[in-house]
Amino acid sequence: MKVAVIGVGLIGGSFAKDIQQLWPEAEIHGIDSNEIHLQEALDLEIIHEKLDYNGLSQMDMVLVTIPVNALVEELPKILDASGDETVVIDAGSTKSLVCETVENHPKRRNFLACHPIAGTEFSGPSAAINGLYKGKTNIICEVEKTAFKLQEKALELFQGMGMRIRYMNPVAHDKHIAYVSHLSHISSFMLGKTVIEKEKNERDIFDMAGSGFESTVRLAKSSPDMWTPIFEQNKDNVVETLEEYIQNLEQFKQFLLDGDFEKVYNEMNNTNRIKQILKGIPLTKL
Amino acid sequence: MKVAVIGVGLIGGSFAKDIQQLWPEAEIHGIDSNEIHLQEALDLEIIHEKLDYNGLSQMDMVLVTIPVNALVEELPKILDASGDETVVIDAGSTKSLVCETVENHPKRRNFLACHPIAGTEFSGPSAAINGLYKGKTNIICEVEKTAFKLQEKALELFQGMGMRIRYMNPVAHDKHIAYVSHLSHISSFMLGKTVIEKEKNERDIFDMAGSGFESTVRLAKSSPDMWTPIFEQNKDNVVETLEEYIQNLEQFKQFLLDGDFEKVYNEMNNTNRIKQILKGIPLTKL
Repeated sequence: MKVAVIGVGLIGGSFAKDIQQLWPEAEIHGIDSNEIHLQEALDLEIIHEKLDYNGLSQMDMVLVTIPVNALVEELPKILDASGDETVVIDAGSTKSLVCETVENHPKRRNFLACHPIAGTEFSGPSAAINGLYKGKTNIICEVEKTAFKLQEKALELFQGMGMRIRYMNPVAHDKHIAYVSHLSHISSFMLGKTVIEKEKNERDIFDMAGSGFESTVRLAKSSPDMWTPIFEQNKDNVVETLEEYIQNLEQFKQFLLDGDFEKVYNEMNNTNRIKQILKGIPLTKL
Repeated sequence: MKVAVIGVGLIGGSFAKDIQQLWPEAEIHGIDSNEIHLQEALDLEIIHEKLDYNGLSQMDMVLVTIPVNALVEELPKILDASGDETVVIDAGSTKSLVCETVENHPKRRNFLACHPIAGTEFSGPSAAINGLYKGKTNIICEVEKTAFKLQEKALELFQGMGMRIRYMNPVAHDKHIAYVSHLSHISSFMLGKTVIEKEKNERDIFDMAGSGFESTVRLAKSSPDMWTPIFEQNKDNVVETLEEYIQNLEQFKQFLLDGDFEKVYNEMNNTNRIKQILKGIPLTKL
């Protein structure tokens, strides 16, 4: 089994580590526009050797784990360079534009559009870890456009890694993910900004961070290089989520100003059922 | 050493557990308006016996760990019932109103106003854990108003529990904590609300929650009984933080609408320094 990982950061590097554990005989090749990262991935034995696009035709599997702006630029070239039996898998956090980009590509059947919902706030090859994807959801889009034998090859990997598979169309994916992921990141970044702007004394932030701030602001450590193109590609959905979020905050503020603490209580009480949702226990629908 | 814990939930129960470890000979008495919680605390051996206010005069130390609305009502009565050598310690998340409430109380010198910055999103006696306060900050207000010998007694406990002490005036405390804690809770509650309202299918939320939503929404599991009175008492500061937060979100949205992704990038990049702040590594001030 010959595998190429294009983009040897947290996401690609963690794939490579799991693949090594699952298929010890696999040869893992790495490609990265950042030569320092590529060398680091080699030194950390995340990949076995460096590659360039000329070598892609020899690969059984190509994982494309690069920021989504680079993804839409590179994916057509990667498919051009791939062999007839190569399955090319992406891991982009947006799915509409990437699917549109290769819609009419002659090797569309070699491509499987994926979004493994996993990550940490860290990045780069040194952030790659074993088991990052275990128990996590992998959303696959337009599965019917991928050759069946190549789907099978990819699914063997995902199942071996312990991922849960969900199928979704790219438009629905981008809408849902705007709420559940993209909005979380913006709320966290803007929370961090608001606190940093106000707290001139950083020591005060640090001392008080145990009060819930630390977990809520965790995503504000995320990479702007990764997130700017995501927000750009999913702009319409993200703006919609932001408008609804701001409206809910305005309403909460108004309840405070009105001194209507029964409504303040109810707002929080109604949202408490997020506990059950995150436990995966469906509530009784009325 | 005789200790009373008034309010045997997460905060008071965790104090009781640490005290048992630190001072094995201590007798821990419990008071709670919720008889089920009180019995649970006894069954879990968090407390050794039940007490009422009549017994407070015999106590060396009284920890008052109840919601802040109950705190301002009960604290004068608790001080009335306490002995001359009893140190009464609160753990309220707001400090101005509680300090005002007992400002002219004849036993003001018996009271130490504290806010241990620790907690989890869980509540009740069964949520109490050993070591909750280790390495956490305890903010003490108006320390000069507490009798020195009683300060010493309290500090011996806090140091034994491994807490870091910070002194602050109540007005500054309430302003800082509004940014670093109270705003985090509202941002999390409203994020949860926005996502629940939109995602009719709770399965979708659950499947995608690994994308950062889970940690950002963690605080939305918090108890409305605890948080409504905090927001009520700290309303002015909380409204101010909300206005600044909403303004930052509006601006971010505008950058998206304008297609100004350089500014979107910069907003995130500037906030990334929260990483250094939370590591406690002070940045070079220019």
